[in-house]
Amino acid sequence: MVKTHPMWNDFPNVQASLLECLELIIEKTTIENKEIEQTVIDLIESQGKLLRPAYFLLFSRLGNATQDAHKRITSAAASTEVLHLATLIHDDIIDESAMRRGSETVQSKHGKDVAVYTGDLLISVYFELLADATDSVDIIQLNTQSMKRVLLGEINQMTNVYNTDITYEDYLKSIKGKTAQLFELSCYEGAYFGQCDPEIIGQSRSIGQNIGIAFQMLDDILDYTQTPESLSKPVLNDVKQGIYTLPIILGLETHKEAFLPLLKKGEQLSESDLAALVSLLHETNCIERAREIAKSYSDKALASIDTLPSHPEKDALYSLTKTLLTRHY
Amino acid sequence: MVKTHPMWNDFPNVQASLLECLELIIEKTTIENKEIEQTVIDLIESQGKLLRPAYFLLFSRLGNATQDAHKRITSAAASTEVLHLATLIHDDIIDESAMRRGSETVQSKHGKDVAVYTGDLLISVYFELLADATDSVDIIQLNTQSMKRVLLGEINQMTNVYNTDITYEDYLKSIKGKTAQLFELSCYEGAYFGQCDPEIIGQSRSIGQNIGIAFQMLDDILDYTQTPESLSKPVLNDVKQGIYTLPIILGLETHKEAFLPLLKKGEQLSESDLAALVSLLHETNCIERAREIAKSYSDKALASIDTLPSHPEKDALYSLTKTLLTRHY
Repeated sequence: MVKTHPMWNDFPNVQASLLECLELIIEKTTIENKEIEQTVIDLIESQGKLLRPAYFLLFSRLGNATQDAHKRITSAAASTEVLHLATLIHDDIIDESAMRRGSETVQSKHGKDVAVYTGDLLISVYFELLADATDSVDIIQLNTQSMKRVLLGEINQMTNVYNTDITYEDYLKSIKGKTAQLFELSCYEGAYFGQCDPEIIGQSRSIGQNIGIAFQMLDDILDYTQTPESLSKPVLNDVKQGIYTLPIILGLETHKEAFLPLLKKGEQLSESDLAALVSLLHETNCIERAREIAKSYSDKALASIDTLPSHPEKDALYSLTKTLLTRHY
Repeated sequence: MVKTHPMWNDFPNVQASLLECLELIIEKTTIENKEIEQTVIDLIESQGKLLRPAYFLLFSRLGNATQDAHKRITSAAASTEVLHLATLIHDDIIDESAMRRGSETVQSKHGKDVAVYTGDLLISVYFELLADATDSVDIIQLNTQSMKRVLLGEINQMTNVYNTDITYEDYLKSIKGKTAQLFELSCYEGAYFGQCDPEIIGQSRSIGQNIGIAFQMLDDILDYTQTPESLSKPVLNDVKQGIYTLPIILGLETHKEAFLPLLKKGEQLSESDLAALVSLLHETNCIERAREIAKSYSDKALASIDTLPSHPEKDALYSLTKTLLTRHY
């Protein structure tokens, strides 16, 4: 029985549509190979937050689309989650991560072969859902460009691994690609498929981008402030793998001499080194400063949402964004 | 300087168009990350046979398309090679292959991370080239289904690894997906984009499928009859990895008791075991029988090509297919 993350209990309308998206994803990934089919079902049942289709659906409801568009909206909304799942699975191959969302990762449980093919299968399903949703090749092309930008963000992050000269601009470029791009696409496509007024379509992209940036920054901050239990995933993993995110980058900017000796240990960072690093981040105010920067992006997103024309679903969009960007999980 | 495989020196018209496809692929994969960009260039320069775009181009020339369609034809023809390259790179991650086309594989040279992302980037470029080539979402959808079938063929092969009860039907199903599907698509799309008469479009799929099946069977036979030097890749690799192809399957069908003791050694097969296996394949006539089966498919393809309406490029199509399916390289 497919369920959504409990956060959606407070948004029953969105929840019902998200369940339709999940059922469609399972239908489209039903194949003869039961191991791969089950891999997708396990991922779906691990109750990710479904933020990309949720933002798609919320924007779509601000528009003038009639019931006729329902199937297309479900299909295109589902496609955003499918691309997200594909990138998660392929990222876990690269990170050699053992855990994701409180469960073993696909590659840890089923091996690299299943992980590579399941990711590839999901990319084909991503374009299949899009082609089911639209007669416009321009929308397909928009998605190929978005997928490319997501990958370039990931690749940019990979290039900067263990780079202690990484700048805030490098970081922003990576997260605009790897995370914000898909939020931007989801908000825009929601507005497009929901046949919103041009002014909403026009604002949808930058709202999505600001939400995506704030979301990733917050995620990166939580990696230094939460426990594995509260996040259902390991913490302090990025730094060991040489992925320096916002708090560390702020530390390197202002207290490079203090951070370098720890960072230079690379993969050899011990538990006590990690504890020292976390203390240092707090002492140098990096966590607090990172929170302020993240807040500046979430404030921008909320301010833009606030200017959208009045609509019952606008409040849901605002309150979801507010909750999401002040979360501790 | 991009060059094609020397086999195309005998087909200068096709060669010129193939070079345009390669240049377009390089253009579309020009990105800021030089390692990944170079990875694609290296693959292109390793001079694969470019069979999929070649069949696309040959079929397109049997049609009525004018010069106006030239760019679209180049773009769609290039897309078939790009999907092929993406699957090669991802397959090498799974096989942990060290060599391909006489060069180190992407993952062996650059690591798994570059291999995963380069494959994914190529999948996005595949759909980008298609979206550049057509206004028809149906063509995009045809490609999502083809890509899915290619993957299902690969997945089916993975499922049967070390399965000594594998049947000829299992094998045929795998190669129809993993290889023949893309030949079928290339011939069909060539006929479609070249605006061929309906009778040619109608035959293009089955010609492509028969060529693809014969091509893969021949490839699998060469693995047991050639040297690493003549093929520019390692030989006898499949059987160690538990991938039982046509010759072995014929052996298991008729002389199971003779093959089982060797196959049961799995990854532990020594050089002398492999030599014994090759001798056994010859003694039990499996190589010869496999050649006959492959020939039945190439004969079907050639007979269908023969029935196509008379056209200067028809002879090139026939002679390429004849050469390709009787090759020893």
